[in-house]
This record gives sequence, C-alpha cells and structure tokens, in this order.
Amino acid sequence: MNSALPPFEIALQKAIDTKTKPVGALGRIEMLAARIARIQKTLSPVAQTCRLTIFAADHGIARAGVSAYPQEVTRQMVLNFLSGGAAANVFARSVGADIQIVDSGISGEPISNAALVSRRIGPGTENSLVGPAMTDEMAERAIGAGAELETMAPHHIACFGEMGIGNTSSASLVGAKLLGVPVDILVGRGTGLDDDGMAHKKALLCEAAERTTLQLDARTALAEYGGFEIAMMAGAMCGAADAGKIVIVDGYIASVAALCARALKAEAADNFVFAHRSAEAGHNRILEALGAAPLLDLNMRLGEGTGALLAVPLVRAAADMLRDMASFESAGVSTSE
Amino acid sequence: MNSALPPFEIALQKAIDTKTKPVGALGRIEMLAARIARIQKTLSPVAQTCRLTIFAADHGIARAGVSAYPQEVTRQMVLNFLSGGAAANVFARSVGADIQIVDSGISGEPISNAALVSRRIGPGTENSLVGPAMTDEMAERAIGAGAELETMAPHHIACFGEMGIGNTSSASLVGAKLLGVPVDILVGRGTGLDDDGMAHKKALLCEAAERTTLQLDARTALAEYGGFEIAMMAGAMCGAADAGKIVIVDGYIASVAALCARALKAEAADNFVFAHRSAEAGHNRILEALGAAPLLDLNMRLGEGTGALLAVPLVRAAADMLRDMASFESAGVSTSE
Repeated sequence: MNSALPPFEIALQKAIDTKTKPVGALGRIEMLAARIARIQKTLSPVAQTCRLTIFAADHGIARAGVSAYPQEVTRQMVLNFLSGGAAANVFARSVGADIQIVDSGISGEPISNAALVSRRIGPGTENSLVGPAMTDEMAERAIGAGAELETMAPHHIACFGEMGIGNTSSASLVGAKLLGVPVDILVGRGTGLDDDGMAHKKALLCEAAERTTLQLDARTALAEYGGFEIAMMAGAMCGAADAGKIVIVDGYIASVAALCARALKAEAADNFVFAHRSAEAGHNRILEALGAAPLLDLNMRLGEGTGALLAVPLVRAAADMLRDMASFESAGVSTSE
Repeated sequence: MNSALPPFEIALQKAIDTKTKPVGALGRIEMLAARIARIQKTLSPVAQTCRLTIFAADHGIARAGVSAYPQEVTRQMVLNFLSGGAAANVFARSVGADIQIVDSGISGEPISNAALVSRRIGPGTENSLVGPAMTDEMAERAIGAGAELETMAPHHIACFGEMGIGNTSSASLVGAKLLGVPVDILVGRGTGLDDDGMAHKKALLCEAAERTTLQLDARTALAEYGGFEIAMMAGAMCGAADAGKIVIVDGYIASVAALCARALKAEAADNFVFAHRSAEAGHNRILEALGAAPLLDLNMRLGEGTGALLAVPLVRAAADMLRDMASFESAGVSTSE
C-alpha cells in the first residue's frame, strides 16, 4: 500500500512510527508533527520563533448596535496592546512570542505610537447594512498589505489576532456569503450580548445579508461586509503560507479569514493549524467548512489571537518530537512482541 | 449572593472579571487561574518552575503476558530517559521543565547512573494474579518515599509520569478496587494490544480481581495490586500538595495514582489540575470518579508524564493572566454598555 505514497510521506510515517513509543501513542501530536514536516519539507522541522500580529479596525455596522461594547473600545484596546496589558500580551510573553499591532483602519484620528504598524485603509468601514463596507480597491489593498507584512518576516510560526468592535457581525456576514448559507445560523453573542441584543443583531445581519445574493466570492464578500482587519488577516495568512510558515488559526473571526484565504489561494490551507474551538456559536460551522479539528477546546471567545498563542507550545512540542526524539534502534529499546 | 462567599473568593472573582476582556471570555483559563490562586492563596500567582518526576518499576503480572512489550523495555526506557531521547525528555525541554527519573523498583540489578534517583522498594512486584503484589510495609514505604521527594523540592508545578511494562493492568486493578467496580470496565489496550491480547488481559485481570473483595481501601489496593511506581506517585502527589504545589495529573495511570492520593489525603485533590483525556479505555471512568475535566484531549496514550507536560504552558498562561493582565480601570478601557 505504501508504495503508492510519495517517498517523503513514506519516510515521514516511518520516522514517526519508529520513535520510542507505541505506534500512534502521541495521538494528535503525531498528526501535527506530520503537518509541520510537510510545511517545512523536512523530517527535522523547527518551530521555535513565533510572531502574533493583531489587526485592528472599526466597523460601520457597530454604530447600529451589534455589540455589547461601544466602538471606542477598539482604540482603547489598541492602546492596551501597546502598553502590554491585554490577554494577548500576557499570553505572548507566557509562550515566548513576539507581538506586532497593526492599525488596519481604526476610526478617528490615527494613533501616534512608534510601536504601532500603520496600514490604515480608512477610518473604519462604511455601514454594510446600507451599502458596501469598502470599495473593491480597498479590499484588494487590505489583502495585499497583509500579505506583504508576512512575506518579509523570518519567524517559523505566524499567529494572527484581531480587534474591532462589531467584527463578529462582519465575520458572520462574510462567512455566510462564502458558504452560501443564511447568516442567522452563524450569529452568536460576540463579546457577550444578552437575548434581546442577540435578537437585534440577528435581525440587522439578516437585513444586511439581503442586500446581495446568497453566495459571493471572497473578494466581493470582503468588500461588501468585511472588516479591514479581516481582509488584511486573510492576506497575511496567504503571505505567511507563501513564505513557508506554520499559520496558527485562532477562533471565529480568524477562521472566517482563513476561509477567505483559502478561497483566495487554495494552497494556503496546507499551512493552517487550527488552535481552538471558540465558544462563539458560528465557529463550528466555519471549522466544518474548513475540514478543521482544532487542538484546544477551552470555551474561550476573546479573539486577539489568544487561542492561537495557547496552541504554540503544542506546535513546538510536535516539531521537537519529530526532530529530537530517539528511535527504537538509536535508543536500543525492544519493539512490541 | 456574593456576601456568603469568603472575602478571598469575592476578591478573586472580581480580579478575574475586571480584566480587560468580556466576563468569562477566557473560559477554562479563568477557572484554571482561580484554582491556581486558591492553591497559592494569592491573587498574584506564579507558576513558572516545573519538574517532571518519572517513577519506574516492574510488575510481576507482566510476566503473564498483559502487555504488547517485553518487560525489559522498562529498563531500556529508563536508559532512554537518562540519555534524553524519550518523548518526556523532548516535551520537558520544549516547555521548560526539569526532569527527574526515579527507580521505584525496576527488575534485575540496580541501574548504575548518577542521574537516576534510587528509591527501590524491590526488584519488581510479585505477580498479583496469585498473591499480593507487595507487603503492606512496602506499600507504605513507597508512599512515604514519594511524599518525601516532593516535600524537599522548590518548584511551583509538579508533573508526574510513570514507566513500567504492565502498569495499565496494575492501575486497572487498583482503580477498580478503589471504586468498587468490576475490573473489566477499566481494561484497555495499554501500549497497543490486539483483540486477542485484550481478551487475554481482561480474563487475567478478572481472575486477579477475584482474589479479594470488590472494594478495598487505597493502602490495601496498592499492596494487593500496585505498582511501586503507582504507590510512590500517589505519595508524591500528597507531598507536592502538602508543599503548596500545583500538581498536574497526567493520563490513566497517573489518574489512578491521584485517586489513591485523594483517598490517602482528601485535601491533596484541591491542588490537582488534570492535563488530558487519555485514549486508554478506562480513563473516563477514573476521571468521572475524580470529578475531573481535563484541559487537553489529544488522543494520547503514552504515559511518562507527556500529557502533563503539554498542559504546563496552559497553567503558566492562566497564572500570568491573573497576575499581569490589566484591568478595565488600569488600562482606561470602557466596559460593556
């Protein structure tokens, strides 16, 4: 049977199966190691350096009241990222990852801070309830800016996060249009809406979805309903995959960006590692469309790339296992009878 | 309602809920942070230094053919641990944990190696099919030796692993006797038995179980069916908890040791963090008895503490979150409307 497999795949399976452990005993870590080996095209993969990029932007639809938080929280949280106090900062330090914050289009005046990377497409999107969130040209520019940010950087692992009040609404609309499904099946509580808030959000998103046909291509879906940060993250995922990086996909919004990235460039998906199953209602449906089985299930729903960061040690352990673990032969251990 | 809670619990919940994130958005990481805070009795917990101790021993019952591997693999794997080539070594380096190997009672001549900690109770246990695996005095000595190893050491996090061909059989018998259930519901494939091997193992364990009454106390169960390494790990879990450490419980065999530890000293369980759901069949039943919901579910079944090590970064991230993350007030972020 093995003779039908490419030589690399045969060598890879043999390398994993002859490590000093019963065959398959490391479960999903073995599958993860195989994926990393394929991404790096080596049986001695290295997955050490890691950068989290957080794309921040504002959403016209937020002004219609789709979030439990006011729009200025986007800007306030960006300042929190820059001063190192957010969950993403703490987790990045905890797992040993660099962090980069990108202004993809926060509303109001640009934030003046040397540590903030400015790739502003505009001061927040238009309200997608009444018209396109951005022009096609803006969507293209956001995708390109994301790709370019990743192509230059040398780290092994690329994590992506987002910040933008209203962006679960944007992600649900983009996701629904890519999948060609009614948007209401993807609507969740976001940062914490109550029942009334949910009903309001669902009604508004259904109204917004009716403006266009049931299914759209990725570029059009991003222009009609996107998020500058979602478009830029999709581009960054393509760029990182192009550069041979391991791309760790965070929760709901990042998974919608991954869906866009795969639509823009099918091979990008070969580099994806799915970090966690979010508590946001629509995530399971998006993961299913991506054929993804995330590593973690911790009932998290924060965004910022926090779930992606918590998966980094698993990715490192998998690469280290394949590269450094002894074989039965090298260690002089007897195999099963 | 809160007024019925102790002041520490009120302060703890407030500290978690006022971090810059929606209430509950970090899911199980928040619950983990709360557990660590209670263990360390502080709202600024530190969970950095970590040591994995692997207890290795042989089992008389292994000679009856309950494992896919020959008994000499215990000794060979200990040499593999000592030379740094096993999965546990690789994962320990990957997550930044020290590692200590303890000879709890490997069969044959003692291994001469300065890095090996000798706490030999005997050259492997007797065959529990035909009589007690060890004397009551030996069980007591193993428990005491484990406790003493932990009381002295200064790390924040204690992980425990085991190596011993035949020890899923020993663990199943000990677990069944503690729970007072028929042993066959706890029998699994161990390191990888086929269907015939499973049927043989099940028949032998049922025979061994019939020697004694359905339910036994922990000390008697360990003497009748234990593992020196299981008894020593149970003692070490009590000792680590006594010393205020976070005790990360690995998979099936470690969970049986945790069940023993709780029976020996009920408060020890307050310090347990359950790392992962093992692929070994009986694990779910033991976890249920412990009221445990493990952090990871990666289809692993290796032992050696490998699952415990992979949970270490989550424990660190949870402690770091509670200690270092900004509050809405300190970061100047608006709360939900």
